[in-house]
Amino acid sequence: MIVVMRRNAQEEDVQHMIQQVESLGLKPTVLRGTERTVIAAIGDERQVPVGILESGPGVDEVLPVLAPYKLASVETKSERTVVRAGSLAVGNGQLGIIAGPCSVESEEQIVSTAHAVKAAGATALRGGAYKPRTSPYSFQGMKEKGLQLLAMARAETGLAVVTEVVASEDVDVVAEYADVLQVGARNMQNYRLLEAVGRTHRPVLLKRGPSATLEELLLAAEYILDAGNQQVMLCERGIRTFEAHTRFTLPLATVPYLQAKTHLPVVVDPSHGTGHTPLVPALARAAIAAGADGLIMEVHPNPEKALSDGYQSLTFEQFADCMIWCRRIAHAMEMQL
Amino acid sequence: MIVVMRRNAQEEDVQHMIQQVESLGLKPTVLRGTERTVIAAIGDERQVPVGILESGPGVDEVLPVLAPYKLASVETKSERTVVRAGSLAVGNGQLGIIAGPCSVESEEQIVSTAHAVKAAGATALRGGAYKPRTSPYSFQGMKEKGLQLLAMARAETGLAVVTEVVASEDVDVVAEYADVLQVGARNMQNYRLLEAVGRTHRPVLLKRGPSATLEELLLAAEYILDAGNQQVMLCERGIRTFEAHTRFTLPLATVPYLQAKTHLPVVVDPSHGTGHTPLVPALARAAIAAGADGLIMEVHPNPEKALSDGYQSLTFEQFADCMIWCRRIAHAMEMQL
Amino acid sequence: MIVVMRRNAQEEDVQHMIQQVESLGLKPTVLRGTERTVIAAIGDERQVPVGILESGPGVDEVLPVLAPYKLASVETKSERTVVRAGSLAVGNGQLGIIAGPCSVESEEQIVSTAHAVKAAGATALRGGAYKPRTSPYSFQGMKEKGLQLLAMARAETGLAVVTEVVASEDVDVVAEYADVLQVGARNMQNYRLLEAVGRTHRPVLLKRGPSATLEELLLAAEYILDAGNQQVMLCERGIRTFEAHTRFTLPLATVPYLQAKTHLPVVVDPSHGTGHTPLVPALARAAIAAGADGLIMEVHPNPEKALSDGYQSLTFEQFADCMIWCRRIAHAMEMQL
Amino acid sequence: MIVVMRRNAQEEDVQHMIQQVESLGLKPTVLRGTERTVIAAIGDERQVPVGILESGPGVDEVLPVLAPYKLASVETKSERTVVRAGSLAVGNGQLGIIAGPCSVESEEQIVSTAHAVKAAGATALRGGAYKPRTSPYSFQGMKEKGLQLLAMARAETGLAVVTEVVASEDVDVVAEYADVLQVGARNMQNYRLLEAVGRTHRPVLLKRGPSATLEELLLAAEYILDAGNQQVMLCERGIRTFEAHTRFTLPLATVPYLQAKTHLPVVVDPSHGTGHTPLVPALARAAIAAGADGLIMEVHPNPEKALSDGYQSLTFEQFADCMIWCRRIAHAMEMQL
Repeated sequence: MIVVMRRNAQEEDVQHMIQQVESLGLKPTVLRGTERTVIAAIGDERQVPVGILESGPGVDEVLPVLAPYKLASVETKSERTVVRAGSLAVGNGQLGIIAGPCSVESEEQIVSTAHAVKAAGATALRGGAYKPRTSPYSFQGMKEKGLQLLAMARAETGLAVVTEVVASEDVDVVAEYADVLQVGARNMQNYRLLEAVGRTHRPVLLKRGPSATLEELLLAAEYILDAGNQQVMLCERGIRTFEAHTRFTLPLATVPYLQAKTHLPVVVDPSHGTGHTPLVPALARAAIAAGADGLIMEVHPNPEKALSDGYQSLTFEQFADCMIWCRRIAHAMEMQL
Repeated sequence: MIVVMRRNAQEEDVQHMIQQVESLGLKPTVLRGTERTVIAAIGDERQVPVGILESGPGVDEVLPVLAPYKLASVETKSERTVVRAGSLAVGNGQLGIIAGPCSVESEEQIVSTAHAVKAAGATALRGGAYKPRTSPYSFQGMKEKGLQLLAMARAETGLAVVTEVVASEDVDVVAEYADVLQVGARNMQNYRLLEAVGRTHRPVLLKRGPSATLEELLLAAEYILDAGNQQVMLCERGIRTFEAHTRFTLPLATVPYLQAKTHLPVVVDPSHGTGHTPLVPALARAAIAAGADGLIMEVHPNPEKALSDGYQSLTFEQFADCMIWCRRIAHAMEMQL
Repeated sequence: MIVVMRRNAQEEDVQHMIQQVESLGLKPTVLRGTERTVIAAIGDERQVPVGILESGPGVDEVLPVLAPYKLASVETKSERTVVRAGSLAVGNGQLGIIAGPCSVESEEQIVSTAHAVKAAGATALRGGAYKPRTSPYSFQGMKEKGLQLLAMARAETGLAVVTEVVASEDVDVVAEYADVLQVGARNMQNYRLLEAVGRTHRPVLLKRGPSATLEELLLAAEYILDAGNQQVMLCERGIRTFEAHTRFTLPLATVPYLQAKTHLPVVVDPSHGTGHTPLVPALARAAIAAGADGLIMEVHPNPEKALSDGYQSLTFEQFADCMIWCRRIAHAMEMQL
Repeated sequence: MIVVMRRNAQEEDVQHMIQQVESLGLKPTVLRGTERTVIAAIGDERQVPVGILESGPGVDEVLPVLAPYKLASVETKSERTVVRAGSLAVGNGQLGIIAGPCSVESEEQIVSTAHAVKAAGATALRGGAYKPRTSPYSFQGMKEKGLQLLAMARAETGLAVVTEVVASEDVDVVAEYADVLQVGARNMQNYRLLEAVGRTHRPVLLKRGPSATLEELLLAAEYILDAGNQQVMLCERGIRTFEAHTRFTLPLATVPYLQAKTHLPVVVDPSHGTGHTPLVPALARAAIAAGADGLIMEVHPNPEKALSDGYQSLTFEQFADCMIWCRRIAHAMEMQL
């Protein structure tokens, strides 16, 4: 890393910081400019708590040079990871489309949705059985009963099942029924949960927290990879900004940026990423054109009656129409769908 | 608007607010719920300074119901505006591609760029002659000499010229040479300038400020429309958020959202919207897939030598390649390009 | 809530929405303005999934009127809650000062810090034994051994112990040693954990997530209150914004805003809220002047050697000096410290 | 600056960048680590367009080392600037209190307010005559007539007058009447206006734009200083963030941060910084405790009738009460008021 000294730093401060850098196992090189001195510290700064150098006497700032993640990095593994789970393949030119309701509500609801999204071109079914809800007074999900209904919908349609797990103690039961374990945005930094899904053999869909940096997202993925599970998809689902006309702001630059930094596939969620049904199709198309490896979208037989997220769910007809245009864009992009 | 009273508001507070609403020329309707009283104020709240009701005794909050802009609204004019300026047509199915350097630097630079972008498919030339720069020590533009070089490039290629005007006192000279007047993000709320470009007969490209809401952008457009100029393009160029891996965050939901609210065409700037050359092509494609009516992009013969914005400029080759894919997406979207 | 219809909404859309409102158990009142129709729905909207009304035909937007939390609301309980745990009292004029290292690292470190912060005026000791860390390669805490060292420091100094719990399965062991259970920013929406701490008899310090709205914070508190634990402190520790010169942005308007909405005490964390040691004392003073009920601050015997957060920790001397000025401000504010 | 090469950068890329650095007049030092090569470029990087190095082949990122402003820097002038204008002194231990209405509306309004704020302890009068308004349909100010009324209020009370100038063509007339020229947040990057006020002999109050970084604010000040005017106050008035319960988020860390970077005094605006009257006094106190050199606040005889900003204005009584507590805090801070 680079330690920038203040202009008025004393020589003894510089000497002190040189010692500090050495004590961290890094090799210091001192550069004395006309205005300031900087100390370049060469070596693997990932292994050392570099932040503490900022407390040193005479230090103005410390600039890291290396990315702090390793297993997720394209510098560690250059061939692109393809995540596969039954009917779903995501990455390296294969576009996965995961669709379904926010929450599993009944057999009829989930099975009819599975048929409808499959007919329109989806390659996996989503549906929440364990729901993390902002208010304790909101519907909290059907739990294991919901998982059973998802398995039933898979049996009927052949679609792989993607469903959220919200606590490490639930990982076993969810992994028993699901093809892909989703870690939601609120749990992106729930490290116990990341370690627990990392010890399963199920692929993981890891959603970005709404205020997480991409470096933090990659470090969260690193927890899963480090626990032994290499089948990880990253999901951009929107960030918190000052914009109020959408629930979240969906930054599609995430797609090419992550693809340059990591070998893991990148999925986009235009439903949470906008929070309003009428905006979802445009962002779904845009995500594919930006090069996304997959989409995850909310579809419900009757959004006005949905127990959660009705305001951002597509009807069957809206989804079918959206998919017509998504396929045109995917074709233009030479993606397989 | 809706005036929500506090739970513990007194009856005299309610009566006071009813009077206030009436004194603003609005018709109050009082709704008494089990927990609170709300006063609905019916009428054209745009004409009245409603914010002041928030100061009233016992008032919890005031919720506006009507959008504060009128001329820009799709409710006022439902047919979509097409902006035309020489070779450029933007809106209602016609995709405009505006490309060129950040700054005009020399005859050779601007003329060669004009030829290159036209060959690749651009329909207008951009180039800054008056440059608003963050630092007083940066290159401030060639001023009128730059405008003359732009006119020369137009004479050689037939491309319409889009260039920025930074002060009301420059509007006349810029309007003499340019086909489209650009109002930059820093000047989106420079109301004198908005009024001045509104009094010209030149189309205007109005860029969103990096922390402006879309309502503020539409109100800025309203200044131009209100001054008599109906040829206005709105431009999304990215907002300030916590993300640091891009210079700005480009929220493409702006495109379908604005198209539902206004009849004015919506242009996207993927160069400023990302701030890094390698991310520009993906966001250019995504903008078209989101339904944008136009793109504005920075292209330079030698970005490493550019006097401004080299880090986000495409070379001629990069732009030509980008346009190949943009055309594929435009074709998939059934846009004319 | 208020359902605002689009200008071009059909009468059948209005009738449909009236039925929807009724089916939710709310009483609709229709207000027909010159430009639009709005439907006011009176009743306890907290019990119904109102968001789904946004999916209705012809609906422009839905404006909630009631706050979605209840137990945390000042409208439910008007006397202010005082949180007490051993040496610590927070709320209603009593200022609590919680100080100590980010992580417990050794007996000497934690005991010496406890003595130092007590001497300077702190009323409780903080220290992390279970550490949620962004990177899997960072120090993860001493776990139960750390809890034992905290208990030892309490035995020596009499200071109440505040420490973080990161998973519901750890709640029992942490509650055995700690006087106050801290729920960290990353876990603000870990609902299982909220429910688990809600079932203990230990006071809880609940930190705001860096992108959580204050309504989301109050709803997270509601999970704890609803589980039976009334001893909850809310903690502002900074939000994610575009500002890069501080790690987070510390919005002190949180203090008077929350105090007007809830009876729970409000604590401020100027260490995480700035992320840089030199900025901490000014924000500590400012928090007290804004009316905060408590402070939580990081103090370390040797920040340059700290295993975590050294860049934002005060030395013993810096903390003692900071406390001198904090006491002056507290005195000016007529707070007890 | 520091040029960080990609891991897979070729030797020819490194050589190319060494040449580029030399061609900018900087001295390159090459540091070859186990994972990457970095090139440190020593010299005054402020004079060169360093951003363009990012376009170079094999470059990962470019990290600036020097702050880009110079005249505003504490490294250039270490004694603190005190701004003086009639009754107002701001900086170096002297606390200035600027109070008055958002807009000048009538003789009675401005004169009565001047008397009231002076009696409560204000040291200058604010009031807008030229108003930049978001909507073209809002009250746009009394213009020169308003300036005359401000001068009348000064004649009656002896308070210095602070008023906004919104366009370079108005600078002369405003400077004729005003003691301090305010440049508003929307105009922070209106460089013509900055240059124009820089050429006057009137002190300037420069407000931070709601999405401006502090570096951008200091560079805006640099335009004024560079034009010859050394009497500049910087004003924090809140930034745009995701928070919706306040109009803007007021980051008080700005105060100690700027005071460490610049010799210019720092003023805080708790009225715009919160946007809600009930939150203003707490943030006024907090700003003083954070070390601010001055405050600017909105006060109106009857906020419910104000033509602008009524929702954030204090009544005379509220202001007098606020000042009692502000004085207590100022006394605790050993500031002169």
